[in-house]
Amino acid sequence: MKDTFLRACRGEKTDYTPVWLMRQAGRYLPEYQAVRTEVDFLTLCKTPELAAKVTKQPVDILGVDAAILFSDILIPVEAMGMHLEFSDKKGPVLSDPVRSKAAVDRLVIPDTEDSMPFVLEAIKILRAELTVPLIGFSGAPFTLATYMIEGGSTKNFLNTKKMMFQHPGLFHLFLDKITSTVIAYLLSQIKAGAQAVQLFDSWAGVLSPEDYREFALPYVKRSISELKKETVPIIYFVNDCAGLLSEIKKTRADVLGVDWRVDLRDAVKKIGKKFVVQGNLDPCALFLPKEKIEERVKDILWKGEFARGHVFNLGHGILPETPVENARAMVEAVHRFSER
Amino acid sequence: MKDTFLRACRGEKTDYTPVWLMRQAGRYLPEYQAVRTEVDFLTLCKTPELAAKVTKQPVDILGVDAAILFSDILIPVEAMGMHLEFSDKKGPVLSDPVRSKAAVDRLVIPDTEDSMPFVLEAIKILRAELTVPLIGFSGAPFTLATYMIEGGSTKNFLNTKKMMFQHPGLFHLFLDKITSTVIAYLLSQIKAGAQAVQLFDSWAGVLSPEDYREFALPYVKRSISELKKETVPIIYFVNDCAGLLSEIKKTRADVLGVDWRVDLRDAVKKIGKKFVVQGNLDPCALFLPKEKIEERVKDILWKGEFARGHVFNLGHGILPETPVENARAMVEAVHRFSER
Repeated sequence: MKDTFLRACRGEKTDYTPVWLMRQAGRYLPEYQAVRTEVDFLTLCKTPELAAKVTKQPVDILGVDAAILFSDILIPVEAMGMHLEFSDKKGPVLSDPVRSKAAVDRLVIPDTEDSMPFVLEAIKILRAELTVPLIGFSGAPFTLATYMIEGGSTKNFLNTKKMMFQHPGLFHLFLDKITSTVIAYLLSQIKAGAQAVQLFDSWAGVLSPEDYREFALPYVKRSISELKKETVPIIYFVNDCAGLLSEIKKTRADVLGVDWRVDLRDAVKKIGKKFVVQGNLDPCALFLPKEKIEERVKDILWKGEFARGHVFNLGHGILPETPVENARAMVEAVHRFSER
Repeated sequence: MKDTFLRACRGEKTDYTPVWLMRQAGRYLPEYQAVRTEVDFLTLCKTPELAAKVTKQPVDILGVDAAILFSDILIPVEAMGMHLEFSDKKGPVLSDPVRSKAAVDRLVIPDTEDSMPFVLEAIKILRAELTVPLIGFSGAPFTLATYMIEGGSTKNFLNTKKMMFQHPGLFHLFLDKITSTVIAYLLSQIKAGAQAVQLFDSWAGVLSPEDYREFALPYVKRSISELKKETVPIIYFVNDCAGLLSEIKKTRADVLGVDWRVDLRDAVKKIGKKFVVQGNLDPCALFLPKEKIEERVKDILWKGEFARGHVFNLGHGILPETPVENARAMVEAVHRFSER
């Protein structure tokens, strides 16, 4: 197995900078769409053979250095007892959003083997078949809480912040329960064979640094400290993290994922030399002509040199409209320009 | 007239820190809603007596130190030749979004007196009646371009970035035309009596620092350099600015508005001592209990002391759901805790 990605996550020297893309198994790939014509999104997540199949697609098509398990961030939320549906227009919809102590109390901390066996089976299939490392993942506690409180997509996260500001005790209780779920879920993934894990804090960037410190950071720290009992690298990605850089380094993740709204060199200056960084090309930059994509890749690779190590990635998930050949050109450019 | 706000904008010592709120004339006020039951949103913007009436409401109700002209960011866009409608569900809708050279060519640089006389009349009425300074405003060029290209609200700004990345020459031509519009529009507002102006760059925060430098900054700089021929203070607000702080100080605005996602003291460190800062309480923090609002006000006032000067504000527009008494408590706390 090609272990360049894992070695880079550990801060070891590698022959080139490894690269993968958030949401690399997804709608921009015709091969993925072909699978989706036969099953709906949730069925795809819950059918191990199919989830494994689409997980492998970008490895073959793009030549990325790691695979990330195809699943949805809300799978463990459903297992906690919420009703989950996907609408093509509105995205995920969780009925009966969590807005009270009774609703928090009703949630369970699920056993992964009992309630999400398909995730573990997909991991096992993938480990037998993949030629690159497999990344497991979970939403981070604050981010999962926003979905569960809002019930779907939101602009201002007002319901989340209302609970946070008006019922901080309840919000902490809620986050605590989610954190236990996240830890158990990721430990099961590691046990099944995940060789690295990423915590996605997609919405923690809507918090002021002060609120991040109180409502997001402690739960990420607890998750990571439990996960550190295993030996796999832990990646922590916060979208819109520019104002939170001096906080996220307190998480003690091995790798910090950085979005595109911050200059990677500035981010490294703020984060310091202890961390491997992951990122941070604007997903929209994949609509540039190829020679411009190459220029940006070079620039980011140069900035990544200032960190302890660098895993190349986009600054957020790849967009469904992205031309596949441009994603492939990006991967190829990362490999070519970083060869040592 | 109480000139505390203007003096603070100029970096002069004041007896207390002045405060106003972005979107302070708006839906959270029952008095505003009463006016809206009789006219639709665009009619309200275009009826000088009514626009003046709602502009004054927060001065009386909250005790803020400045009034900001009630209008919409898209008024000059309509005057450039686009068709504008407001839908309760979807917000602003601009039909025939700008996606081609022909569409850019069709746009005009409007004469404010001819095509937006209601704005100037509202300013004149307000100057005769207000006891606090009046702020005029415009969207900044990049932000106006996003609305004109997307045609409405958007998640990823993909159409904007496609034009930016695939047709940079056209995008620059487009921004140039918008900039001429913004400058003429703000100069007319100043001539009519606006005592300060704010440029709202609500969406520039979706740009990487590199793209901000190429596609937003030059047009803000040109706008500000033209406006500096007048003597009124110029405020420049970028939402989600944490990754752009070392760029926005190049604009030479008098006052830099900062959103809540960045610690104000960190922002001042990055921006330096030359600027007055404006901000930056999370609008959702107005859902806190009053004593907690006071704590946050104190903390932000303390951080503001490190800058050349400080105008207190929210970090983004006040939300429609906000309890009026909490907004009033915030204003009162700013005055009380900053008294020198």
